[in-house]
Amino acid sequence: MHLSGESGYKKKTMRQIKVGIINVSGYAGVELARLIHQHEYAELCWVTGRSMAGRKVGDMFPHLFDIKLAIDAEPGDADVVFSALPHKASAEVVLPLVRRGIRTIDISADFRLKNSEEYTKWYGVTHLCPELLQEAVYGLPELHRAQIKSAHLVANPGCYPTSAILALAPAVKEGIIQPDIIVDSKSGVSGAGRSLSVATHYSEENESVSAYALAGHRHLPEIVQELETQSGGSSLSVTFIPHLVPMTRGILSTCYASLVDGRVKDGKTMAEQVRQVYSDFYREEPFVRVVDASPKTKYTWGSNFCLVYPTVDDRTRRLVVVSCIDNLVKGAAGQAIQNMNLMFGFPEDTGLNSLPIFP
Amino acid sequence: MHLSGESGYKKKTMRQIKVGIINVSGYAGVELARLIHQHEYAELCWVTGRSMAGRKVGDMFPHLFDIKLAIDAEPGDADVVFSALPHKASAEVVLPLVRRGIRTIDISADFRLKNSEEYTKWYGVTHLCPELLQEAVYGLPELHRAQIKSAHLVANPGCYPTSAILALAPAVKEGIIQPDIIVDSKSGVSGAGRSLSVATHYSEENESVSAYALAGHRHLPEIVQELETQSGGSSLSVTFIPHLVPMTRGILSTCYASLVDGRVKDGKTMAEQVRQVYSDFYREEPFVRVVDASPKTKYTWGSNFCLVYPTVDDRTRRLVVVSCIDNLVKGAAGQAIQNMNLMFGFPEDTGLNSLPIFP
Amino acid sequence: MHLSGESGYKKKTMRQIKVGIINVSGYAGVELARLIHQHEYAELCWVTGRSMAGRKVGDMFPHLFDIKLAIDAEPGDADVVFSALPHKASAEVVLPLVRRGIRTIDISADFRLKNSEEYTKWYGVTHLCPELLQEAVYGLPELHRAQIKSAHLVANPGCYPTSAILALAPAVKEGIIQPDIIVDSKSGVSGAGRSLSVATHYSEENESVSAYALAGHRHLPEIVQELETQSGGSSLSVTFIPHLVPMTRGILSTCYASLVDGRVKDGKTMAEQVRQVYSDFYREEPFVRVVDASPKTKYTWGSNFCLVYPTVDDRTRRLVVVSCIDNLVKGAAGQAIQNMNLMFGFPEDTGLNSLPIFP
Amino acid sequence: MHLSGESGYKKKTMRQIKVGIINVSGYAGVELARLIHQHEYAELCWVTGRSMAGRKVGDMFPHLFDIKLAIDAEPGDADVVFSALPHKASAEVVLPLVRRGIRTIDISADFRLKNSEEYTKWYGVTHLCPELLQEAVYGLPELHRAQIKSAHLVANPGCYPTSAILALAPAVKEGIIQPDIIVDSKSGVSGAGRSLSVATHYSEENESVSAYALAGHRHLPEIVQELETQSGGSSLSVTFIPHLVPMTRGILSTCYASLVDGRVKDGKTMAEQVRQVYSDFYREEPFVRVVDASPKTKYTWGSNFCLVYPTVDDRTRRLVVVSCIDNLVKGAAGQAIQNMNLMFGFPEDTGLNSLPIFP
Repeated sequence: MHLSGESGYKKKTMRQIKVGIINVSGYAGVELARLIHQHEYAELCWVTGRSMAGRKVGDMFPHLFDIKLAIDAEPGDADVVFSALPHKASAEVVLPLVRRGIRTIDISADFRLKNSEEYTKWYGVTHLCPELLQEAVYGLPELHRAQIKSAHLVANPGCYPTSAILALAPAVKEGIIQPDIIVDSKSGVSGAGRSLSVATHYSEENESVSAYALAGHRHLPEIVQELETQSGGSSLSVTFIPHLVPMTRGILSTCYASLVDGRVKDGKTMAEQVRQVYSDFYREEPFVRVVDASPKTKYTWGSNFCLVYPTVDDRTRRLVVVSCIDNLVKGAAGQAIQNMNLMFGFPEDTGLNSLPIFP
Repeated sequence: MHLSGESGYKKKTMRQIKVGIINVSGYAGVELARLIHQHEYAELCWVTGRSMAGRKVGDMFPHLFDIKLAIDAEPGDADVVFSALPHKASAEVVLPLVRRGIRTIDISADFRLKNSEEYTKWYGVTHLCPELLQEAVYGLPELHRAQIKSAHLVANPGCYPTSAILALAPAVKEGIIQPDIIVDSKSGVSGAGRSLSVATHYSEENESVSAYALAGHRHLPEIVQELETQSGGSSLSVTFIPHLVPMTRGILSTCYASLVDGRVKDGKTMAEQVRQVYSDFYREEPFVRVVDASPKTKYTWGSNFCLVYPTVDDRTRRLVVVSCIDNLVKGAAGQAIQNMNLMFGFPEDTGLNSLPIFP
Repeated sequence: MHLSGESGYKKKTMRQIKVGIINVSGYAGVELARLIHQHEYAELCWVTGRSMAGRKVGDMFPHLFDIKLAIDAEPGDADVVFSALPHKASAEVVLPLVRRGIRTIDISADFRLKNSEEYTKWYGVTHLCPELLQEAVYGLPELHRAQIKSAHLVANPGCYPTSAILALAPAVKEGIIQPDIIVDSKSGVSGAGRSLSVATHYSEENESVSAYALAGHRHLPEIVQELETQSGGSSLSVTFIPHLVPMTRGILSTCYASLVDGRVKDGKTMAEQVRQVYSDFYREEPFVRVVDASPKTKYTWGSNFCLVYPTVDDRTRRLVVVSCIDNLVKGAAGQAIQNMNLMFGFPEDTGLNSLPIFP
Repeated sequence: MHLSGESGYKKKTMRQIKVGIINVSGYAGVELARLIHQHEYAELCWVTGRSMAGRKVGDMFPHLFDIKLAIDAEPGDADVVFSALPHKASAEVVLPLVRRGIRTIDISADFRLKNSEEYTKWYGVTHLCPELLQEAVYGLPELHRAQIKSAHLVANPGCYPTSAILALAPAVKEGIIQPDIIVDSKSGVSGAGRSLSVATHYSEENESVSAYALAGHRHLPEIVQELETQSGGSSLSVTFIPHLVPMTRGILSTCYASLVDGRVKDGKTMAEQVRQVYSDFYREEPFVRVVDASPKTKYTWGSNFCLVYPTVDDRTRRLVVVSCIDNLVKGAAGQAIQNMNLMFGFPEDTGLNSLPIFP
C-alpha cells in the first residue's frame, strides 16, 4: 500500500505558463498570488507593488511565507499578466502590455463598460483607450465563456456584479420577470480593500450594519449592461443598494422582481418552475450551484463557488433570488484564475477546486 | 462649587409604581429588568422565569448584580406587568391579569394582530381570547400615542415591524409611493433570542450572512396591518425578507417603493421633498430622528432611538428608506418602557434618555 | 398614581460645574462627552478637536446628536478640564491650565509616572514640566481616593494598568505573593484609538488574535510603580504582555504569581483565603466587584465596573487573578468622571450608575 | 503553450487508500472529510454520524456538496479509520477496530495519556483498555515522527497541547528554562465544538473574552506529559489557563518561563540565542515556522502551519513564546492527516499544502 514518495499536488510540470501580477499589495492581488502559487500549470514569476518594492512578498504578507519573490517596481515579461491596480491607473499600465501582445486580465473597472461615456460618467475620468473597450471581454465565464477563450484582454467583473448578474441572468434571459429590479447586497469588509478609512476601522465597523452609496454605486452600470444583454437589449430599471456587514469575506445579494403574468404555469408551484429555469441555465456550470434552501455566505468561504437560491413570494408573485459568493475569490481573484484557465485551455477548475472552509 | 452629597440620578421617589416582569429569562426580559432598575418612577417588585425560579437575577445575569430579587415561579401584584413570554404562552398568562384589571404590556405577538384569523394563519394556533384583540392597542407610540395613554393592554410591536413601519409610515400616509413595497431587513443575532440553535451557534453564525423565512415571516402581517391603516385602508403588496448578520444588536431595514407620479414637484429635488415629508411627520417625536446621511445601526446601540434616512434613486424614481434601531431597546424593551411612561403619565423619555454607546 | 410631569433623570440643577474637553475627537474624548452630557452636576461647555474645529459634535459623532456644541480650536474657561490629547501634546496644553489654577484631569500618560527619567525612557521625550509630577495624583480611586479629592492635577490611569493594578493590589499589599508576576492582558480594539492603522483595519483584525509590544509596553512602568507602592517599596519583577482580540470594548487581564509559603493557612482552601483578602480590600468600593466565578468582559460592557476573580491553581500553588473592565469607561472616560466626582464632592457614582448592557 | 486537458490536482490514482471517519458530525469530523476529499492518495469511503445517519454529507454540511456519501450508522471496512467521537465513546469504538488490525487515528483524548490513573482523574471514567495506552503513539510528528510511521494506533493531540508543546519543547529539551511555566492560551470558539451551549451562543460570546476551566483543564496533563518527556523526566510546574475569544478558528498561546542562569551567553542578545535554539530544533519541520515578529492567528487560518515566536523579556530574564495554529487543522484534522501521511509513507505534506487564507 505504501507509495513511492513522488509528487504532492503542487507538482509543477515543465509546461507552466509564466504569470505576473501588477500591484500585489491589495487584497485582490494578494489573493491572486496565493491562488497562482497553488496552480498546477502556472508559475508566479514576478509581482509589482508601488509602496512595497524591494520587500519580499512573505515579509509583507506573512501567510505567503512560501513565496520567495521580491516585489518589483516595474512589470517584467510573462505569458499572462493580472492587473490589480485601481481604475485609471490600471488602464495606463495595461495599455502598453496589450499593445505588446501580452494577454491581460484586468481586475479593475477600466474595461468592463462597453460605453466610454458611461465610464466617464461613473468614474469621473476620460477613458485612456476607448478603442479597447469593444475588444475587451467581460470576464464572467457563465455568460461569455467562448469569447473569453480567445480574448487578449479580459475585464474581470466587480464583486457585486458577479453576485447580482448570476442571481438574475436566468430570469432576465427567460423573460419571466418584469423590468423593475431591486438588488440589495450585503458585503464583507474586505470588499472595501486594504486602504485605510474610518469606515473600515475595526471599532467603527464591528457590531454595525450600514447602507452606502445610495446616490449610485459604480457597480450599477455593469449590472445593467450585462443584464440588458441577457434581456435582448430591452431596458431594465435597476436599483442597487450595497451594504457593509461586520465580516471579512462574503457577499450575499437579495434580488427582487415581479413575475411576468402568464409565464409561470400551473401544475408546479411558481417556485418549482422558477427553480427549473435556474437549474437548466446553470446545468453545466462548474462553479454555480442552484441550491434548494436559503444559503449562507459561509458556505462559499475561501472557494470559487456561487450559490444561487431562487424562490417566489407567493402572496405578491415576486421572484426573490439570494446569491452568495466569496467576494475575493469568485468576486475577484478566483474568477480571474478561472478566466486564465479558459484563455490557456486548462481545465476550467484548475487551482480552484478547494472546497469552502467551514466553520 | 461643592455640592451637598444628596442624590444620584437613581433617586427613587416615594411615588414609584410597582412593576412585575413575566419571564425575565430571555433577552427582552433581561433588558426590561435593566431599564426598569434605572427608571426614576418605577420599582421592579418581582420577576418570574420558568427554569430559573429560586435563583437570584444577578446570579443568572451577572451584569444585573445590583438587582437583588430572586426569580419567582408565579406573578405577584403590580401596577403594571410586562410579559416577555413567547406567543400563546403569553396570552394564557396575560388574560387573567387583564381580567383582574392590571395594566399589561405584552412583548409577545399575541395581541398585535387585530384579525384573529390572521393570527391563526401565521401562528398556527387559535387565539385564546379574540375578544381582547380590539381592546389591545398596538404599542407604537408614533402612530397610536393617544390610545396607548388610556390602554389597559398594550401589544408591544415586533422588532422588524418597528423598523419597517417607522421607515414607511410617512410615505404611505402621504400617498407618495405606489403600493408595491420591498422591505429588506438585516438583524443582529440577539433578535433570535436566547434559545440555543445551530443557526445562532457562534461558529456557524460568525463571518456569515443569510436570508431566512423566505416563505413568510410572522412579522409581515403586523407590517401590513399598520401600514394599511396609514394608507387609509387601501391594500399594499409587501415583500419582507429578514437577514441575519454577525453582530449582537441592531436592525437596519432598507425599504423600496416607486414614487407616485406627479406627487413630487419640481424646484426641490425629489429627495429633498421626500425628506420634508418625513421631517414633518416626525417633528415632535422624541425618539425618531430623520437624518441626512446613511446611518449605521451602531449609532443607536443601547438606546431607544430610531434613525430614518429617506432618499430617492433618481434614475428609477424609487424611494429608498433606511432605518436603524437597537432591536432590544426600541425594538423591544425600550419601546415597552416608552409605552409604560405614556400609560402612567410620566415624561415619555423617562429612563430612556441614555445616548447610544459608541464605538 | 399618575405623577406630575416634572423632570427626567437628566434634570440639571443650577449648581452644575462647567466642563471642557480638550481633543474630543478620539474614543476617550467622545466617551467623556457622552458621560458628561448625562451627568447631573456637570455641564459640557466646550470641546476642542484639532482637525474637526468648526464642525458640530453631533455631525462628527452621530450618536451624540443631542450635543449641540460646535468643536472649538482652543480651550475656553471651565471649572474642570479633561485633556484627551496624546502624551507630550497633552502636557503642553495642560501646563498653562494648571498654572491658571484650573483643575485638570489628564487622560494621557504625561503625569502618571513619578520619575521623569522613567518617562523619558518609555516615551522618548524629555518631560516638559517634571516639577508637576509629584503634585499630580495617580487617579485610581481605589488606591488614592483621599489625594484625588484635593488634587488639582489628576493623571488618569491607562486602561491596562487599571485592570492589572486592581487585579493585583490586594495580593501585593497583603504580601501573599512572591515578586515574580505575569500579567497577560487581552484588549478590544478600541484601546488602540481612532487613528487608522493596518493593525486595526477591520479585515486584518477580525478573526485574529495577536500579542504585541513584546519588547515592552508603555503601560508597564505604571503597573510597576503602583504595585511597588502597595508592596511597601520592595521590588517586583513584572512581565506584561498585551494582546489584541477581535472585539471593540473590554480588557481582560489574567495575572499569575506564586503564593508565599506559609501565608495561606489551613482550614479554608487557599482559594477561599485569597478571596477573603480581596473581598476585604474592596469591601467599600462602589465600582469593584470581587466575583466568585470567572467573569466575561461582556459583563462590564458600557459600565464603570471592574470585576475581579481571584483563585488558586492548587497543583502549583499559584495565584491566578482575572479582572475585566470596559477599557473606555473604567479604563478611561468613566474613571475620569469618577475622579471629577471625587474632586468636586459629588457622590462618587454620579453619572456612572448605568448597569452594563448585555448581551 | 496550451496544454491538453488532463487532470486537475485532484487526480486520484488507483493506489488510493480507503478511509473511514467515525462521527463526521462535529467540527473535527467535518474538517477531516474536507481534507480527505482533497487528498491525492486517499479516498473517503464511509462516514458515520450518530444523529445524522441516512442523510447525505452535503445536505448536513452544505460546503461539502461535492461529497456524495450518505452518513452511515456503523463503521465499514477501511485501510485507516479516524475517530472523531468524544472521549470514552471513542475508546469503545476504536478498541474493536484496533483488534481487527485496522490502523486507527483517534482524535479524542482516550489514548493520549500514558498513565491510566491520570486518565481516570481528569476524565472521570476508568479506561476501557489501559493495555493499549503504551502501544498508542502520541501523534505530534515534531516529537514522535519515527514512532508514528509504524504505529497502529495514533492518539491525535489536543488543540491546546499542540500549540503549547510546540511553543515550549525546544526550551525544555535544551534546558534553558526553569521548571515554572505559565501557558496562557486564547482560542476561537470552534474549539468548543458543535454542541450547543449558552457559552457558545452567538449573542453571549460575541464582543467578549473570558477565561475558563481555572480549576484545571483536561489538556493540562497532556502538556505536562509531553514536556516532561522532553525534559528528560524532570518534573515541571505548569499552570495552563485557556480563554475563549470571539472568533471561529485559531489558538494563540503565550508561554512564560524564567531563563536558567548561565545558559544563555553574551555576544548575542538573549533573544537571538533563544531564537537559534528554536530554529535548530525545527529546522527540518514542514509545518512549524520560527518567525521573527509576533504572529497573528490569522496567518495560519485554514492551514496546517504552526508559527512560533520565541523572545525574551530582558528586564525580567523571562522567555516569552507565542505560538499560533488553526485549531481545527494543525490542532485537529490537519494533524491527523499528517499522521496518516506518515503512517502510509506518503509525502508528509500531501493534502496539507494549502497556504493560509488571508484576510
